[in-house]
Amino acid sequence: MASSWVPDISPSSDFSLANIPFGIISTPDDAGPHVAVAIGSYALDLKVLAANADLTQVFPGLNGLTEAFSQPTLNAFAEMGRTVHRQVRAGIQDLLSTATTHPSILRDNDSLRTKALLRQSAIKMHLPMSIGDYTDFYAGYHHAYAVGVMFRGPANALQPNYLHLPVGYHGRASSIVVSGTPVRRPVGQILLDPKEPQQPPVTAPSRKLDMELELGCFLARGNEMGRGVAVGEADEYIFGYVLLNDWSARDVQTWEYVPLGPFNGKNFASTISPWVVLADALEPFRARAVENATELQGYLREGREESVFDIGLEVDLTTAEGDTTTIGRTSSKHLLWSFPQMIAHHTLGGCPMRTGDLLGSGTISGPGGVGERGSLLEMTENGKKEVLLYGMDVRTFLKDGDTVTLRGFCGAEGARVGFGECRGRIYSAGA
Amino acid sequence: MASSWVPDISPSSDFSLANIPFGIISTPDDAGPHVAVAIGSYALDLKVLAANADLTQVFPGLNGLTEAFSQPTLNAFAEMGRTVHRQVRAGIQDLLSTATTHPSILRDNDSLRTKALLRQSAIKMHLPMSIGDYTDFYAGYHHAYAVGVMFRGPANALQPNYLHLPVGYHGRASSIVVSGTPVRRPVGQILLDPKEPQQPPVTAPSRKLDMELELGCFLARGNEMGRGVAVGEADEYIFGYVLLNDWSARDVQTWEYVPLGPFNGKNFASTISPWVVLADALEPFRARAVENATELQGYLREGREESVFDIGLEVDLTTAEGDTTTIGRTSSKHLLWSFPQMIAHHTLGGCPMRTGDLLGSGTISGPGGVGERGSLLEMTENGKKEVLLYGMDVRTFLKDGDTVTLRGFCGAEGARVGFGECRGRIYSAGA
Repeated sequence: MASSWVPDISPSSDFSLANIPFGIISTPDDAGPHVAVAIGSYALDLKVLAANADLTQVFPGLNGLTEAFSQPTLNAFAEMGRTVHRQVRAGIQDLLSTATTHPSILRDNDSLRTKALLRQSAIKMHLPMSIGDYTDFYAGYHHAYAVGVMFRGPANALQPNYLHLPVGYHGRASSIVVSGTPVRRPVGQILLDPKEPQQPPVTAPSRKLDMELELGCFLARGNEMGRGVAVGEADEYIFGYVLLNDWSARDVQTWEYVPLGPFNGKNFASTISPWVVLADALEPFRARAVENATELQGYLREGREESVFDIGLEVDLTTAEGDTTTIGRTSSKHLLWSFPQMIAHHTLGGCPMRTGDLLGSGTISGPGGVGERGSLLEMTENGKKEVLLYGMDVRTFLKDGDTVTLRGFCGAEGARVGFGECRGRIYSAGA
Repeated sequence: MASSWVPDISPSSDFSLANIPFGIISTPDDAGPHVAVAIGSYALDLKVLAANADLTQVFPGLNGLTEAFSQPTLNAFAEMGRTVHRQVRAGIQDLLSTATTHPSILRDNDSLRTKALLRQSAIKMHLPMSIGDYTDFYAGYHHAYAVGVMFRGPANALQPNYLHLPVGYHGRASSIVVSGTPVRRPVGQILLDPKEPQQPPVTAPSRKLDMELELGCFLARGNEMGRGVAVGEADEYIFGYVLLNDWSARDVQTWEYVPLGPFNGKNFASTISPWVVLADALEPFRARAVENATELQGYLREGREESVFDIGLEVDLTTAEGDTTTIGRTSSKHLLWSFPQMIAHHTLGGCPMRTGDLLGSGTISGPGGVGERGSLLEMTENGKKEVLLYGMDVRTFLKDGDTVTLRGFCGAEGARVGFGECRGRIYSAGA
């Protein structure tokens, strides 16, 4: 990979020239949300670029980009399809490269560079897509197993369907927020002692507020109602990926979820990272999924060895006092099901997907100990053990004032492909 | 209620002058979806009316209606709030009344009447709202009890949480279709013998395709994330009501739903009636909900005796041969929870609602026998008994070519408030 002329790109930046993730920004000069890409600690404002440069040189044959780059979401760009995403990412990599073939457009154009290349600290990030529907899967094998052991013992840890299909549920699209949005501790109906279901519940702020480390996948296109998407064609439906923190009120969830699944325990907020890493940027980091000895139904047979990605994932917890501890480290390869399998299953009965739909992987945990877990539920065995933090502090579940930050990246220093931060701070239910 | 000058209003019409439901139509002269109301067998095209008449006389002080009536969904009109809905409905009732105070605007204006008053048979109906999120509750007490008895016996028929909170789950907004849309029998993963969970599943068209008779409620406004809606204020959040058929593939659902709830068993299609009956039109038909001896949490105490509506509901099954049998008759009063209670619960933890969100009541069945049931699951005890149809035919679940039509109305002949038809025909998974 060539190097970039953009200044101050740290070797550990998630936004190397090998990445070029897309996001929605507003700027001091333009309060209307519009499209940008991230490079190092800068954002390249594509609306400004398109308005001031002749992009037909950089993206020959591509129409509609100027219009798409001025939209308040990435949906219009996503709808243009993977071939266009590939061409546009390659064109931007060229523009930002030291050896650019179009030096006069941006590299050597002081006036446009000053207008279009903005410090990320000076801009505001917005939700990248208009999300029609949000579905959360449960494909993190080691998470599902660990939680199953906790509630049903090792013999029945996995439900009979778990190895046959990607279990998932419909989430709440309106509750998806962008990194940095404060999250209010939810009030909910709670049974104080779940072993005494005849006792009345109470209505109170959740005492078991948790995070969930997930990978999110945005769709580029939809399918016709009644017509499924074949697993081998599902790649073409994927726009890109984000980190996803599916905040969970465990005590609310425990009481409400039988028989129809999670509801208020989940729908108060889910946080995503703001920059969408395009599907192509992750292609070099393919890995094998968790092995599944079950004979799969034909519609789930993907026919490739490396169906998931090996993205290093981390969870930081920062206390109100400002002490930060990395409480979990794992990889996105610990999934039993790939996103193409999830898409094939989701549409098997004809469910219509749309551009901008968000799929969550489910919580990702590694096979190892407490340090590889993607939720406090697992780290603390549902509150029985404490997680040790810097600052002589401990946690079972989250306290008001805590900040959870997810991070994820792959690739060597100088050529990293990562997500930046997926961050949220909890504030009091009484505030 | 005064009578209307509109011709041919049958005494049994759902769309009497007492109703005035709103919908989205396209017409031979205007293919762009826009707003209309139903009156008898006609639709009054409100876009044409607003473009050709001075509405400030009819709706004094109301701005933005011309714009709202030309929108492709009712969202803009819904957002204007209940006071405006009330004024506009009253103004239209006046215009259509024999004793109208503005005879020159429509009644005596041959040219405009011809343009604006169209036979319903000559227009096309569209989905009335842009639906951000769809939530389906489980508030039909006799349905929940009957299904519980079937799967767990009478002692454990209701789960411990059922009497304490309105159980619900997030549905799939993209799968909501308007009455008349054909419904493809879904293919799904099915465990042929649920008593043998170690046997492998098959992938096949559902053998247990069912309907569910529900009432749907559209929201007029949303709440700020993190802030709940008090049960006493929830009326102001309600725009109006439709009939809802939540098609269900029982065999798919049985295999997939543990532990996260219904997914592909539901997300292939749900059908709604096209005309939204405004909340105010149903006010005269309030009734007591199913009695709940449980001491409710404070946020669910509604403090009024009559929290639901007594709407007569019917389910017709029409075979491919054209024989129609009414297989179920019940009332919407058989709910344990009211829509204000559902809204208060849904937002308790801060979940943000938006204008156009759809809430389903859950299947509504009466306390009586097979003829009062809102699903074939109940009528046939999960396929063990047969429902007798005209034409010497029987059903356990739906056959390809079957049409299910829901109907619902209240009020005396000549002043009925009803929904028209909520209809869908099943076509083959192989088509």
